[in-house]
Amino acid sequence: MWQQKKIQLTPKNRGFHLITTEITAQLPELNDINIGMMNIFIQHTSASLTINENADPTVRDNFESHFNKFVPENEPYYRHTLEGSDDMPAHIKSSLLGSSLNIPISNGQLNMGIWQGVYLCEHRNHGGSRTVIVTLNGE
Amino acid sequence: MWQQKKIQLTPKNRGFHLITTEITAQLPELNDINIGMMNIFIQHTSASLTINENADPTVRDNFESHFNKFVPENEPYYRHTLEGSDDMPAHIKSSLLGSSLNIPISNGQLNMGIWQGVYLCEHRNHGGSRTVIVTLNGE
Amino acid sequence: MWQQKKIQLTPKNRGFHLITTEITAQLPELNDINIGMMNIFIQHTSASLTINENADPTVRDNFESHFNKFVPENEPYYRHTLEGSDDMPAHIKSSLLGSSLNIPISNGQLNMGIWQGVYLCEHRNHGGSRTVIVTLNGE
Repeated sequence: MWQQKKIQLTPKNRGFHLITTEITAQLPELNDINIGMMNIFIQHTSASLTINENADPTVRDNFESHFNKFVPENEPYYRHTLEGSDDMPAHIKSSLLGSSLNIPISNGQLNMGIWQGVYLCEHRNHGGSRTVIVTLNGE
Repeated sequence: MWQQKKIQLTPKNRGFHLITTEITAQLPELNDINIGMMNIFIQHTSASLTINENADPTVRDNFESHFNKFVPENEPYYRHTLEGSDDMPAHIKSSLLGSSLNIPISNGQLNMGIWQGVYLCEHRNHGGSRTVIVTLNGE
Repeated sequence: MWQQKKIQLTPKNRGFHLITTEITAQLPELNDINIGMMNIFIQHTSASLTINENADPTVRDNFESHFNKFVPENEPYYRHTLEGSDDMPAHIKSSLLGSSLNIPISNGQLNMGIWQGVYLCEHRNHGGSRTVIVTLNGE
């Protein structure tokens, strides 16, 4: 069984955002899968997806602080600068974290650990609405 | 053909550990797959999975040194600090390396390069036993 | 439907290279898949794969500059040094970016965003030809 769905996420501020329920609320098809795999793929190069702690919001704030220190704006060696100082760092952050996630499905549910959630990592100041392609495969 | 298995890894010290055989020893089902995909998913946010060099143990040591420099403890901007100074860096390292791996299966075996192995990256001082969900899919 | 193919990439200089068409030109089978998933897996530990901006070549140059600053050669704590000063950084960069990509297939085509392309990230000075295993699965 294959299912594929394009999901338009609500626009987010720059930072790290928990989107587990924004995604799963649009996937009643999950219930029909006993064993399978969900892939979430983001169709952008300045925003990314990762899995991390779903409880304490300061974790997401600390991610934003650390990645800003990690991949600073206005490095003298940046040449791709026409779209603003937040653009080239956004590309680098996006590749460090990755464009897609694979999450096992078991008994109709995402089989993540109890402290895990899906993050949308918005690396632009004004990224707007982001599009993800969700692909479900299983039996 | 779908197969899914929860595997409890033996506890590891903080650092990078080769776990290829600890995983495959529990997967006789691999032999039945001619073409397919294996997903290993770790159900934690302070340990991660990656693929790297399987021969020289100093590579794993150098990873530990580099990630500790890369993502230091006790950064002044960390707010998520209640679980100890190794906790917030562990979350960040875990997202940099990732929560899951996809490895192609060919003729009943993992089709990695001869120098590749699966690492468990334990980012906590006392992480205990870690749980991974292995999903096999193929024909 | 499963298909698997070993693709030998042309040797690349150290740096980040757009290889979307080098890969898809060898995959006429894509056309037969309505919904599915493509996995590209690189069988090396000193080169990696990522998805990023496919238009401006300075983005790829800026990636190379940033990763060289990020993961410098000749760090005093490197012990795995016999294969040259570019080797240990290559291992670390490779795990930061990752060994495999999953890209959704829709209506016979890779369903990436219009600005996305597949990069081969060559982290060695003389990496030679790299091997990837492409696995297609879909209906």
